[in-house]
Amino acid sequence: MTVMVGNAKEANNFAGGRKQRDVAAYSVLQSSRLDHIPPLPSVFHSPFQVSYGPATSAAGNPEEIQKLFPNLYGQPHVELVPSAKPTFTEKKLKVGVVLSGGQAPGGHNVIAGIYDYLQEHAAGSILYGFQGGPAGIMKCKYVEITADFLYPYRNQGGFDIICSGRDKIETPDQFKQAMDTVNKLDLDGLVVIGGDDSNTNACLLAECFRANKVKTHVIGCPKTIDGDLKSKHVPISFGFDTACKIYAEMIGNVMVDARSTGKYYHFVRLMGRAASHITLECALQTHPNIAVIGEEVALHQQTLRQVVNTITDLVCKRAEQGKHYGVILIPEGLIDFIPEIQHLIAELNEILATSTCDPEGHWKHKLTPPSRALFDLLPHSIQEELLLERDPHGNVQVARIETEKMLITMVEAELGQRKHESSYSGNFTGISHFFGYEGRCGMPTNFDATYCYALGFAAGALLQSGHSGLIASVGNLTAPSTEWTVGGTALTELMDVERRKGKNKPVIKKAMVELEGAPFLKFASVRDNWALEDSYRSPGPIQFLGPTADETNCTLQLELGAVAA
Amino acid sequence: MTVMVGNAKEANNFAGGRKQRDVAAYSVLQSSRLDHIPPLPSVFHSPFQVSYGPATSAAGNPEEIQKLFPNLYGQPHVELVPSAKPTFTEKKLKVGVVLSGGQAPGGHNVIAGIYDYLQEHAAGSILYGFQGGPAGIMKCKYVEITADFLYPYRNQGGFDIICSGRDKIETPDQFKQAMDTVNKLDLDGLVVIGGDDSNTNACLLAECFRANKVKTHVIGCPKTIDGDLKSKHVPISFGFDTACKIYAEMIGNVMVDARSTGKYYHFVRLMGRAASHITLECALQTHPNIAVIGEEVALHQQTLRQVVNTITDLVCKRAEQGKHYGVILIPEGLIDFIPEIQHLIAELNEILATSTCDPEGHWKHKLTPPSRALFDLLPHSIQEELLLERDPHGNVQVARIETEKMLITMVEAELGQRKHESSYSGNFTGISHFFGYEGRCGMPTNFDATYCYALGFAAGALLQSGHSGLIASVGNLTAPSTEWTVGGTALTELMDVERRKGKNKPVIKKAMVELEGAPFLKFASVRDNWALEDSYRSPGPIQFLGPTADETNCTLQLELGAVAA
Repeated sequence: MTVMVGNAKEANNFAGGRKQRDVAAYSVLQSSRLDHIPPLPSVFHSPFQVSYGPATSAAGNPEEIQKLFPNLYGQPHVELVPSAKPTFTEKKLKVGVVLSGGQAPGGHNVIAGIYDYLQEHAAGSILYGFQGGPAGIMKCKYVEITADFLYPYRNQGGFDIICSGRDKIETPDQFKQAMDTVNKLDLDGLVVIGGDDSNTNACLLAECFRANKVKTHVIGCPKTIDGDLKSKHVPISFGFDTACKIYAEMIGNVMVDARSTGKYYHFVRLMGRAASHITLECALQTHPNIAVIGEEVALHQQTLRQVVNTITDLVCKRAEQGKHYGVILIPEGLIDFIPEIQHLIAELNEILATSTCDPEGHWKHKLTPPSRALFDLLPHSIQEELLLERDPHGNVQVARIETEKMLITMVEAELGQRKHESSYSGNFTGISHFFGYEGRCGMPTNFDATYCYALGFAAGALLQSGHSGLIASVGNLTAPSTEWTVGGTALTELMDVERRKGKNKPVIKKAMVELEGAPFLKFASVRDNWALEDSYRSPGPIQFLGPTADETNCTLQLELGAVAA
Repeated sequence: MTVMVGNAKEANNFAGGRKQRDVAAYSVLQSSRLDHIPPLPSVFHSPFQVSYGPATSAAGNPEEIQKLFPNLYGQPHVELVPSAKPTFTEKKLKVGVVLSGGQAPGGHNVIAGIYDYLQEHAAGSILYGFQGGPAGIMKCKYVEITADFLYPYRNQGGFDIICSGRDKIETPDQFKQAMDTVNKLDLDGLVVIGGDDSNTNACLLAECFRANKVKTHVIGCPKTIDGDLKSKHVPISFGFDTACKIYAEMIGNVMVDARSTGKYYHFVRLMGRAASHITLECALQTHPNIAVIGEEVALHQQTLRQVVNTITDLVCKRAEQGKHYGVILIPEGLIDFIPEIQHLIAELNEILATSTCDPEGHWKHKLTPPSRALFDLLPHSIQEELLLERDPHGNVQVARIETEKMLITMVEAELGQRKHESSYSGNFTGISHFFGYEGRCGMPTNFDATYCYALGFAAGALLQSGHSGLIASVGNLTAPSTEWTVGGTALTELMDVERRKGKNKPVIKKAMVELEGAPFLKFASVRDNWALEDSYRSPGPIQFLGPTADETNCTLQLELGAVAA
């Protein structure tokens, strides 16, 4: 292992005392996964060349996107296809890789894929890992990734091989720092593994490098457990499959418990702030009594009271059947989807920015009547969270709000009312769960391990064939992995512009749950049945061998099935 | 499927609208487990007979136990050994089975074991399942368990085949009801699957039946995920293995996240109220920075302040190494182990029974000075839980206290103080978890599936050979399952007496974590290393195939290893 550090002091700060993993401490399963070699798409089994599609446009405002990316706009989709003999010169490459944003299972395998591709197709190439996310690029903090350095991370969860970070490369100074780094390291390529924001950033870097005649090419890779980065040629982001299966295992267990015990309602909040893909996928895997899909709540402009009543109605109906138990799934971002709560929070941010809240509650008079009514409806503990949990900018920290507990308290209150009115006579005990961190760093499923390894190979091939500003694209994912397609798609094709602070900002739009898409339609067609009948389904723990080892997930199967239909 | 119900109305109430499981809704893994046949100990491969050990005594106060169980006391340990030809008459038996107390993975397989034993060795026998726990015996609510009825539950988690309950058979009237039921059904045997209390109850039933010349024999089976029911011949209770592996999977994932992110301290509270076996086992499987073992806290009469300081000291030491993250395991029952908290709660129960707590806090003057000081030390939210969360008897509900959040708040406060004194300069963010319900109803591991099936066979054999008042005992569990020993141990041997309300009550003593036992000594020998170095270990998801499928757990391996040494 060779560690090269541009800035020794800061590298120590970064490393946080962390050493490379010691495989001697590994569990038997961890060790057994080290030597698992994910099967490659068959295009990599023999020589290949590049085939191009037609020129591309943008997800919205193509003229604006073209202005923002004059050097990259319109690049065609690239696909690797077999060729009679090797196409690319096997000249050694210098490549950097960076992990950006939150953890997702499989990140280590993308790096392994890049490394192995370079060894196989451009022997003697060098791979650097920037440490601690994009800050590592700006500060030139990196390690050289060698076979020995990489080995302990193969098919393992986490991002700790080089760690990640949430910094962005935004200001002219920061772009300058990035150029200095890639010039100093003489990089031919840079692979950015990240979500929508990070891939937007990757595209800006690619444009900047090209505009400034810097030779470094930039390729993105689609990462996020939330599943909200996808497009025509990027069927799924990595990590979604593993995270959902981990959550679904736990949900399935809790369902069996609910049914056995017969006296608890489990309210399960699931990670995934912006979109409800995780909740929808977990619902499809486990068949809960209710799964709240944020996008649907938003479409129907539902109030919090309506969400609470929907749940309460179900509790009452089940009580009539003698059932005093159930399982309810809630997306982490539910609050962001309810317009009236957004208004309340905006008003609170405004009020609390200029005054403190007097204990007598006079400050409440500054709220508009609807917001005041909503505030008074909220359980005491949630009122406190809204008033006390604020970020350094004085804003309410929505992510800290325990939505599942809020709903339990409100359903309890509503049931109390109905009991009083004699329209309900059951027993209700709510138990709250939040499944989040447990899923972000699990051991990748066979699917994620294989998908990520292929993404790494794709990124390597795209760099070797001289491309920049593309996101690695691996398709046909419901077929056996040997039949997967491999290529790259213009990042500009995923982009639209947003107006921020008077400027046009390019953004990759988050892919929300489509209410007309196959996964939601499937869910909508069966959920009434799930509500009253117990159709609970236990996916059980992720398996690496046996009949379930190579299962994908419901969302992917339904989406790709729909495309084919 | 034949359902026979002694009391139709109540049976409907019990069933709570629940129907038998529908295997058509099963996941692929659930389906694949249905046809898994757990391998039996080899003694069942050919004819066997019974071999007896010497007469037994009791765990304490043998004279008192003998007085309480005059018809059962002193029975020798029974072991099945091969014989040249079949020993027992294959007369048909009528047997009842009941699940008692909290869920534990594997319960369905005990029932499958009893059923299959009877079919194989006493064809034409009938097995009844009492519904909803011991109440099902008292109220004569049962179903006949047939091959078809049983099939959907083979190797599946949960207790929902007949559900469980927490009632006890205690009063003379209730014993009378039980006798009426077993007489009415003409039962030759009754198998009670439960924890320490339920097995105590099983022994009282066995004594009652024998004293009253009721022909029904009673056999117990050791169930509890807490792992606190064990003795010389009962090396482990079923469910412990699966539950710990599920928790350890999640803990391992959270560890990878902590290490990758580098900025969170995860405080994980683990189910297991009375004893800390689960926390110890999970620690041995995952190597956390701290695992608090309740029995050790109790031995050293630690105060809450001392527990908080131990954690805070570690956070400071790790901060000096640049590490601002970690994972800390806490047993659910921690509060029960801290003497000063017990005193405070006792005083609160006393005070709140006779008065309400005035908002001005005058009531606090009724606390003794040490309790007053401790109360003031507690975070506001915990003070509220202590004052507000009370059971119908007015007692504080200790189980509802979120110990992990309490510790985070207190560590935070202490770190704030040290920052103020300049002895700490790091960043601390605590994240709380409670892993409980997720583990109680998981799909049983191969170990639990096989162990439970063998326990069921053992119970069947003990009944067929005419025994009563024994607990099924399957030993040599670290060897391949074909080499496991099978027999039964006198329940009276596990008993001691406790003085309750002026009477001697027989009790099976809970097996606490032995601070001189091999598992704790192993932990104690390595924990200083784990505290500062990151020796995190990810067991990963439970596997049913491959190199880890037949692993047992650390506690069992260390305890059985120690016995052999």
